[in-house]
Amino acid sequence: MYRITVIPGDGIGVEVMEAALHVLQALEIEFEFTHAEAGNECFRRCGDTLPEETLKLVRKADATLFGAVTTVPGQKSAIITLRRELDLFANLRPVKSLPGVPCLYPDLDFVIVRENTEDLYVGDEEYTPEGAVAKRIITRTASRRISQFAFQYAQKEGMQKVTAVHKANVLKKTDGIFRDEFYKVASEYPQMEANDYYVDATAMYLITQPQEFQTIVTTNLFGDILSDEAAGLIGGLGLAPSANIGEKNALFEPVHGSAPQIAGKNIANPTAMILTTTLMLKHLNKKQEAQKIEKALQKTLMRGIMTPDLGGTASTMEMAEAIKEEIVKG
Amino acid sequence: MYRITVIPGDGIGVEVMEAALHVLQALEIEFEFTHAEAGNECFRRCGDTLPEETLKLVRKADATLFGAVTTVPGQKSAIITLRRELDLFANLRPVKSLPGVPCLYPDLDFVIVRENTEDLYVGDEEYTPEGAVAKRIITRTASRRISQFAFQYAQKEGMQKVTAVHKANVLKKTDGIFRDEFYKVASEYPQMEANDYYVDATAMYLITQPQEFQTIVTTNLFGDILSDEAAGLIGGLGLAPSANIGEKNALFEPVHGSAPQIAGKNIANPTAMILTTTLMLKHLNKKQEAQKIEKALQKTLMRGIMTPDLGGTASTMEMAEAIKEEIVKG
Ligand SMILES: CC(C)[C@H](C(=O)O)[C@@H](O)C(=O)O
Ligand SMILES: CC(C)[C@H](C(=O)O)[C@@H](O)C(=O)O
Repeated sequence: MYRITVIPGDGIGVEVMEAALHVLQALEIEFEFTHAEAGNECFRRCGDTLPEETLKLVRKADATLFGAVTTVPGQKSAIITLRRELDLFANLRPVKSLPGVPCLYPDLDFVIVRENTEDLYVGDEEYTPEGAVAKRIITRTASRRISQFAFQYAQKEGMQKVTAVHKANVLKKTDGIFRDEFYKVASEYPQMEANDYYVDATAMYLITQPQEFQTIVTTNLFGDILSDEAAGLIGGLGLAPSANIGEKNALFEPVHGSAPQIAGKNIANPTAMILTTTLMLKHLNKKQEAQKIEKALQKTLMRGIMTPDLGGTASTMEMAEAIKEEIVKG
Repeated sequence: MYRITVIPGDGIGVEVMEAALHVLQALEIEFEFTHAEAGNECFRRCGDTLPEETLKLVRKADATLFGAVTTVPGQKSAIITLRRELDLFANLRPVKSLPGVPCLYPDLDFVIVRENTEDLYVGDEEYTPEGAVAKRIITRTASRRISQFAFQYAQKEGMQKVTAVHKANVLKKTDGIFRDEFYKVASEYPQMEANDYYVDATAMYLITQPQEFQTIVTTNLFGDILSDEAAGLIGGLGLAPSANIGEKNALFEPVHGSAPQIAGKNIANPTAMILTTTLMLKHLNKKQEAQKIEKALQKTLMRGIMTPDLGGTASTMEMAEAIKEEIVKG
């Protein structure tokens, strides 16, 4: 029995979460789902975007599913706080083409491993008389830890190559450290290929030669940018899942946001959230069940059952129902 | 008569510069070209990547053409120093599809205006016991100035829309300032549409809906990343020109680097450098001549005369010669 904390959040977060839980019901796994609150609706009710109670529930769960939240300027970001408070240092963002979906590249299969705790995300920003200054903090420990995670992950997944992405020609010290630690870790994996590119070049290579990537490891903000770009290559944010993984806890969320403009219409694409549950299942060592969901999703897409963002006419829950049926059929 | 300082630099910088100067000879404009040194070869000869003499020649020229330099770790970057020393605050990077060239989007025509003097490029980086810290500096003055440049440029080019790109949901103060100044300037151009996106979303939109962009204005590092991504959309860095523009001086360079691995083989694509000269000509108010080169380049590409990176068999100088002949034919 797995104890899962469920944070639907705001906007379409609520809808895609409902769809994903619907699909999970088709599996023969016992889950205990505990709902918890976060985000802007939660703020309106209780004055906090991330109540202490939610943090507690995330800490004691075997895993947490997170939908999406709306962050209003001035409010504390629930997701950034969760990543940092729980030290979820690795943000795993697989980029895998799906059948039947209109996209630029039908043959991509790589993963972006994004450092999730430091860089410009530390929130150390000050106003000055002329403007403002933000600190970009890079530590040896975090650089080493994320590189280790990337090599371990790549090895486990049977990949041959890990690519570090940085801007050490300009950020000589901070990204110099990141690159150095990467190559130190690489030397512990002599059977794996290791190389590195500048972030600007990578933004281009993702378009001109994306097939060459296997595992990309990078700092927080570059990972943010490149993973959205990569989602664009396979058909958009509606398809991109992610995992935030720490030593003790793990939280799974789609890359997309709460999309207030389409919320409440039952048209949000549940694919990213459903794929997100497969990352959770793999993390819980339920690989076969994860593959069942993936296969059922692929069949559903190949039958043309998809939401309007992909050119289809299915609603969020129709897509979920179709996937559930495919799983039951086996 | 225009006095042009010419800095070929290293690697393919030398080759594409020769090609571009060859093409310029076909125009009925009198230029006085003065060669100047910068980069790694220069460092080996004189111990400096950017000698005082070169800076002086750039300062007194009507415009400077810059090829590309190799920057060795530990050396001062010639191009970053030039941008900062001469306060070349606006980095203009047009993204325009070319006919006959294999690319994802044959119909793009927008421009990225990149702030060129601050952000993480200020070089304010320190080691700490745990790693290193870099400062991201954003000022009201520079944010305002680059937004003004963007709106003026958009208006001059007959565009209707300017889009600011930032990450103000995380960089609340620094990018909050950038966004605020952008909208203040926008209010001085009521006839123009102004909107803003997060940088991660923009990295995706460039792939999923690039046709919607007209003028993008952004901070230094985001501009660096997005402009390489955009070059990927139209066929690669071999096609992307840029202008670095200040109050007093202007320096024109292709977006690509010195590409040591293909240097000396006469196969480098001269297109970016040749398009770079058209940006210079427009800056010198020689719009017709700029268009002559553009047309001749287009005809040459449509005849299939292109370098190996685009799938052709022409050498660097064969391409230049063909373009020159097209101009002479008229
Ligand atoms: C919502 C935002 C703070 C977040 C980030 O920048 O990390 C998002 O873009 C993401 O990629 O998860
Ligand atoms: C060479 C490098 C310092 C430079 C930059 O980052 O600005 C280059 O990538 C560019 O875009 O002109």
